[in-house]
Amino acid sequence: MTTSENERDYVQSLERGFAVLLAFDGDMVEPTLAEVAAKTGLSRPAVRRILLTLQRLGYVASDGPRWSLTPRVLSIGQHYTATKAMLELAQPHLLALAEKTGESASLAELDGLEVVYVARVPVRRIMSINVAVGTRVPAYATSMGRVLLAWAGAERVDRYVDEVAFRPLTPSTVTTGAELRDRLDEVRERGWSLVDGELEGGLISVSAPVRDQSGAVVAALASSTSTGRLTTAELEERTVPLLLRTAAAISTELGHRPLRA
Amino acid sequence: MTTSENERDYVQSLERGFAVLLAFDGDMVEPTLAEVAAKTGLSRPAVRRILLTLQRLGYVASDGPRWSLTPRVLSIGQHYTATKAMLELAQPHLLALAEKTGESASLAELDGLEVVYVARVPVRRIMSINVAVGTRVPAYATSMGRVLLAWAGAERVDRYVDEVAFRPLTPSTVTTGAELRDRLDEVRERGWSLVDGELEGGLISVSAPVRDQSGAVVAALASSTSTGRLTTAELEERTVPLLLRTAAAISTELGHRPLRA
Repeated sequence: MTTSENERDYVQSLERGFAVLLAFDGDMVEPTLAEVAAKTGLSRPAVRRILLTLQRLGYVASDGPRWSLTPRVLSIGQHYTATKAMLELAQPHLLALAEKTGESASLAELDGLEVVYVARVPVRRIMSINVAVGTRVPAYATSMGRVLLAWAGAERVDRYVDEVAFRPLTPSTVTTGAELRDRLDEVRERGWSLVDGELEGGLISVSAPVRDQSGAVVAALASSTSTGRLTTAELEERTVPLLLRTAAAISTELGHRPLRA
Repeated sequence: MTTSENERDYVQSLERGFAVLLAFDGDMVEPTLAEVAAKTGLSRPAVRRILLTLQRLGYVASDGPRWSLTPRVLSIGQHYTATKAMLELAQPHLLALAEKTGESASLAELDGLEVVYVARVPVRRIMSINVAVGTRVPAYATSMGRVLLAWAGAERVDRYVDEVAFRPLTPSTVTTGAELRDRLDEVRERGWSLVDGELEGGLISVSAPVRDQSGAVVAALASSTSTGRLTTAELEERTVPLLLRTAAAISTELGHRPLRA
């Protein structure tokens, strides 16, 4: 076997393996082999080989004709958490922020066109989706995404605006590159972001940047609430100062030394 | 290529792909290719092909000679969460339990010889490890593991005792199959488990079974604290009744109808 064939095999079988694993989702929780084949576009024999391999590795289990994920799948994600010192350092700060505000506190990173929740202290359910660590949401419609894009550099923002498909998730969602760029300018200017009902009606969140030793923004810290609990004015007055202090404390632990005027 | 060769390729490349992904860990956060090769026992060319494939899929990134996991890895685990209705149903109950007790509340499942945290509402840090969703701990030394083993059936317990390597994690850890079986009998008898300092000194936790429609124990609900905050007597008196009510409420949502005497 030549190297290029071998390489292609690796690429293909790994790619297909992940496609099968990720085919399991909220709308397909215990699929049959045929359903996985239909969703992934792979042949039934290919899906069968992959499912049997994933079963041998402990990531899926079968019950009659139906397949399901095992909790071992969660352990894959835990390896990310274990490699990021930031997440461990941030945990007590997230807990303290959630306690002081009485609201859920989250930490998120940019991944492609979306933000991924990388740590979260839930206080109550405020979104229609169940926000677990690993949940992905569009960057343009969230305070966390705007903080991450605001300091990601002009090239990154250009690429983002080119590639993203804006969708009016609510009547107030930003849906053009020009509007988004205006919002990012505002975020950079005031140092934090407030988004009111653009991802989901009734959901408001504020975010601030977390910086590392180099000054680069490596995560966004957010506090989220619902319009029924706090007005945006109250959120600005009560939550934002706590949020900024918490983001600064996490940044300091990451070795960031802010410049003094 | 014959079917059996093709099958072997799938098994091997998927297996190797996961081995490389899981090589990233707390003790190897940004390894070089050579370090991954040393840890996995794979050749450097094989590791190189896999890392390039994982990079193309967005799961790893390189910075000079060093490789790291991306937050997309967390999204793999999120697919498990999305497929388990129990986790969404359980979330408000975990929040309420954490609020009423002022202690961290967790839900765990058995996976092989370990328990995996599948949902968690942290309140403060009580363990030396950072317990994120996906974290694995030995079943024999935890209240969650004992609840899950207590109702897993005799065959499963026999297999567990055969396969597990007991380690004295603290001076009080159960380290023999006979001792563990005695504890499991007690758990079945009283309906819940209390473990005091067997996983880590100063850590006490209580767990109760969560049952599905069929009556099978599908998860363990736990409340954890430290000996400095509550005595075991206080934990039994204050926390256990709340824990049992919460486990029963989650079970009811899963369709469980307890038999009345």
